[in-house]
Amino acid sequence: MKIEQADVVIGYSTYISLIQTIIKKDAEVASGTMGKEVERAKIAVARANQGKCVVMVSSGDPGVYGMAGIVLEVAAQEKFPICVEIIPGVTAATSASAILGAPLVSDFVVISLSDLLTPWEKIERRLEAAASADFSIILYNPQSQGRVEPLSRAYEIMLKHINPKTPVGIVRKAGREGEQYVVTTLDDMLNCEIDMVTTIIVGNSATKVIKGKMVTARGYDLST
Amino acid sequence: MKIEQADVVIGYSTYISLIQTIIKKDAEVASGTMGKEVERAKIAVARANQGKCVVMVSSGDPGVYGMAGIVLEVAAQEKFPICVEIIPGVTAATSASAILGAPLVSDFVVISLSDLLTPWEKIERRLEAAASADFSIILYNPQSQGRVEPLSRAYEIMLKHINPKTPVGIVRKAGREGEQYVVTTLDDMLNCEIDMVTTIIVGNSATKVIKGKMVTARGYDLST
Repeated sequence: MKIEQADVVIGYSTYISLIQTIIKKDAEVASGTMGKEVERAKIAVARANQGKCVVMVSSGDPGVYGMAGIVLEVAAQEKFPICVEIIPGVTAATSASAILGAPLVSDFVVISLSDLLTPWEKIERRLEAAASADFSIILYNPQSQGRVEPLSRAYEIMLKHINPKTPVGIVRKAGREGEQYVVTTLDDMLNCEIDMVTTIIVGNSATKVIKGKMVTARGYDLST
Repeated sequence: MKIEQADVVIGYSTYISLIQTIIKKDAEVASGTMGKEVERAKIAVARANQGKCVVMVSSGDPGVYGMAGIVLEVAAQEKFPICVEIIPGVTAATSASAILGAPLVSDFVVISLSDLLTPWEKIERRLEAAASADFSIILYNPQSQGRVEPLSRAYEIMLKHINPKTPVGIVRKAGREGEQYVVTTLDDMLNCEIDMVTTIIVGNSATKVIKGKMVTARGYDLST
């Protein structure tokens, strides 16, 4: 299924506006606001039940903190089977990585600092585990207006285990208009501008800054 | 830069054959064998130094266990700056996830079981950390002919911390001809066919199998 062929296109309004030009002229477009994920999934499934070709739009990869799960869960409640195809995309971790250099060529973890759906205690446990086992760490949803505590808590946990001079890359609007990035260090990261459209990548013990790029050495012998 | 415009295209022969039709007719093509990563990076940088437009091809995302890091490292040794653009792609974790359903909508870790460049003790420490903190776990390079011990050791470590009935998805050749997948459980996973072109996704405590698909529940209330 392609977006160009869809009878119905559903998604958060910011994402809809990015693909406006390829939506069929007579397609039904249902944009919505952040936080109404279940509502949007139910509309998608109801339209599919009516025989429509429905596209649900996510940013990045729909399977990484995206709508893929909720659509499958809602579709499974229907009496008749609904065919759901999930199209993978480039998630913020790897688009930010490409902008910064190559921080993720070794093992890494992806953690969201949003505690809307995950208890904060579990997020802390995951941060502790990741920081103590020398993973590169990617933080999604690091901060929003009025919600700064999770990031400063994550910062404290990471500093307990990770060298404060470890390179950290901060990318805003990865792959979109207005993209910005900075390479700094763990101890300095809270001095940078960080919001909900920011992805943070904390290197591991083998990560260096080479000519402005963040590179995790895999251990190849370059002299051969 | 597009592959179609490259003067020189370099990559492991399997990947070169997949893009043969879009390579410029008079382009220099240097394919190579697995294990000669440094050699290929040096050829790429040498050609770029001669003023050529060079494309280095990786599968999946070049920044995830790919060639991005080694190319940046080799390029940085040159006297004159070489412009390196890294184009992100769909890595095996997310392409396998899309095939299986939606196992990665919550926090996850990516671990390679290849100990060619990473000491096995470090890989074990990362497996322990990931399994004990309820991450979904993606295993890259799980097994090759004659190298079965890492996977059986990883299996033991995961079973210490994770419910044996946790869903596990096993995908071969994700997104390529001959793609295959199976959804099983942690305690049964070693009974499945697993090789170097296999990606394994172990769910977390919220992962269920819904109508054959592997879905990690994020905690949305579906009754609203």
